[in-house]
Amino acid sequence: MKKNRLEAFSDGVIAIIITIMVLNLHIPRGTSLAALQPEIPILFNYALSFVFVGVYWNNHHHLIHAVEEVSGGIMWANLHLLFWLSLIPFVTGWMGENHFAPVPTATYGMVMVLCAIAYVILQWTIIRRQGNASFLAGAIGRDRKGKFSMVAYVVAIAAAFVCPWISIGIYILVAMIWFIPDRRIERALETKTTPSAE
Amino acid sequence: MKKNRLEAFSDGVIAIIITIMVLNLHIPRGTSLAALQPEIPILFNYALSFVFVGVYWNNHHHLIHAVEEVSGGIMWANLHLLFWLSLIPFVTGWMGENHFAPVPTATYGMVMVLCAIAYVILQWTIIRRQGNASFLAGAIGRDRKGKFSMVAYVVAIAAAFVCPWISIGIYILVAMIWFIPDRRIERALETKTTPSAE
Amino acid sequence: MKKNRLEAFSDGVIAIIITIMVLNLHIPRGTSLAALQPEIPILFNYALSFVFVGVYWNNHHHLIHAVEEVSGGIMWANLHLLFWLSLIPFVTGWMGENHFAPVPTATYGMVMVLCAIAYVILQWTIIRRQGNASFLAGAIGRDRKGKFSMVAYVVAIAAAFVCPWISIGIYILVAMIWFIPDRRIERALETKTTPSAE
Amino acid sequence: MKKNRLEAFSDGVIAIIITIMVLNLHIPRGTSLAALQPEIPILFNYALSFVFVGVYWNNHHHLIHAVEEVSGGIMWANLHLLFWLSLIPFVTGWMGENHFAPVPTATYGMVMVLCAIAYVILQWTIIRRQGNASFLAGAIGRDRKGKFSMVAYVVAIAAAFVCPWISIGIYILVAMIWFIPDRRIERALETKTTPSAE
Repeated sequence: MKKNRLEAFSDGVIAIIITIMVLNLHIPRGTSLAALQPEIPILFNYALSFVFVGVYWNNHHHLIHAVEEVSGGIMWANLHLLFWLSLIPFVTGWMGENHFAPVPTATYGMVMVLCAIAYVILQWTIIRRQGNASFLAGAIGRDRKGKFSMVAYVVAIAAAFVCPWISIGIYILVAMIWFIPDRRIERALETKTTPSAE
Repeated sequence: MKKNRLEAFSDGVIAIIITIMVLNLHIPRGTSLAALQPEIPILFNYALSFVFVGVYWNNHHHLIHAVEEVSGGIMWANLHLLFWLSLIPFVTGWMGENHFAPVPTATYGMVMVLCAIAYVILQWTIIRRQGNASFLAGAIGRDRKGKFSMVAYVVAIAAAFVCPWISIGIYILVAMIWFIPDRRIERALETKTTPSAE
Repeated sequence: MKKNRLEAFSDGVIAIIITIMVLNLHIPRGTSLAALQPEIPILFNYALSFVFVGVYWNNHHHLIHAVEEVSGGIMWANLHLLFWLSLIPFVTGWMGENHFAPVPTATYGMVMVLCAIAYVILQWTIIRRQGNASFLAGAIGRDRKGKFSMVAYVVAIAAAFVCPWISIGIYILVAMIWFIPDRRIERALETKTTPSAE
Repeated sequence: MKKNRLEAFSDGVIAIIITIMVLNLHIPRGTSLAALQPEIPILFNYALSFVFVGVYWNNHHHLIHAVEEVSGGIMWANLHLLFWLSLIPFVTGWMGENHFAPVPTATYGMVMVLCAIAYVILQWTIIRRQGNASFLAGAIGRDRKGKFSMVAYVVAIAAAFVCPWISIGIYILVAMIWFIPDRRIERALETKTTPSAE
């Protein structure tokens, strides 16, 4: 029951984060297609962040599914993740409104790194509680995708000061890699429980 | 359990979308009825979009009800639908603030088409997963209402450049057609399960 | 299960409505207590509307509890109620920002009437579905409190053009009357089911 | 079931409160790191309030867990708490935008006191309903942490007029004290029910 409430609260916050981003789109003053043009990069950026937040929701879903018992530590690690996720609308707006200028683009990457670190901390907290031999520890394995993303974000932050478009390319690449949900846990779950027709 | 969380998250996002639209209503500067007047088209537009989002929530409710098992594909098809739905407040505001000017009115129709396409993709994804002989495939049938709406939206987009009021009329017509929830699934469900006194 | 989702969606929308009203409070420019002063009527108004929305949530809770089976009609009657409730933040802001000027104060009453009518329609829709001999029909009875509120709102709307403070007094009175949750259904429920230690 | 809905609604409101605060962060006009600088105190303040709201959510979670039956009084005591919590984004924004000026900093403390009082009232309401010999009454005990916080807030309010930084220090201290969830209830619960592998 406790776990349900953690899920419900996280879902609520993530649902608000993903929807609040649309408020970054300003209603254009004019009524021509040209008036809509300045909103295009913001819209693109919104779509990118939508995918990122969607990925986090997806993986969070699988992660919490593997939690056996919610401790105080898990609750706070989860809130910590939600905190950094909640900054995504802010950096999305800043980057989008400034046509991918260096500092906003790097800041976007910074928040992405902090979200990723918060996610790893949440994973650790759960595994520490449930033991290294736990189901989750096995399912995560060496977490190559997570480590690659982290390195990619750092490269993107540095690249922003040379050419922000490289950073954007890296962000899209990482989003695409994660687009596919965390099959590791899903696969391990399928092996564990025989899927019934429900 | 997984299905519940997909429902809860979607409901959260749709609830925010439907409520955020009210923020498009600006608090009038004056205190006379005349000061309220510029908000009338925005209010009308809000009501129209409220019905549309309500229809999506209603049908989404029935659709997810028919899902047997949530896959990664279904999750993403669902997020894709939520993305386009989340643009409704933006186009609603643009159309309402500009007294149904051609481009905003056409853009409104564009987003409606994209929502409709996203809904069809979600249907397909679910049916592909559950088989053509599945309960849902039978309940949807030839999807005449869906196809009609799509054609109507396209006509409305074209008509916006001639006379936007025709487009508005078409939008109202489509909303009215869908006002009645997707009885197909409901009826099929009733045949499947004998309704008990709960 | 269907009923749960109706409840969850309504709760989501009502939770957003009740919280969005706080956005009407503008962060004061200065840092003195005097700078806070213009926000006092808005804050008072927020508190009033908070109680009203809280009352609706409370009664809605009891009402939906009595629903045996959700029909399309109940869904739409519920969405209709949510539509008018969603206008409360707008009229709350308008009335609060204008120190209870006649027209905004009357408009507030108008939205209150429309919410009350929508609530009655929802009640009717549920009772029509479940029969006059149903549990809910008996619990509602002659609905004196509902009828009194409706009359009170109409008086408040008229009074706003003479002296808005009379209207405010009436709104506070109605809020106080409803403050106590709909004991009728609660009492009837208690008679129906023996309260266990859970 | 009733209890579930109280939890769900409260979670919804708290999720919105915690996320809406991020809207206080203004998207900087420039694209330099310097342009981001004015947002630093707002961000710090957001983090502080995020922890406070997180603490309330955490403790609220444990508190409602101990509720056996939801009465009208508990519902209203809960809404009363949500009302004061909903003012946190407002005072957070005011304090953050004004670099911790005396009045905004004291006002922040005032809202904190009012939230704390509302929490105590909710506790009382639940205990009064369930009896002094109830599980919750025993778990709360003398509520030293609660009493200490209340005194600390009052000191912080007074200190704001001498040196606001003392107030900020006290707020951080209180947040840290509460960071650890209400172990009292958790511990008592563990003694009550043997933790199963779920």
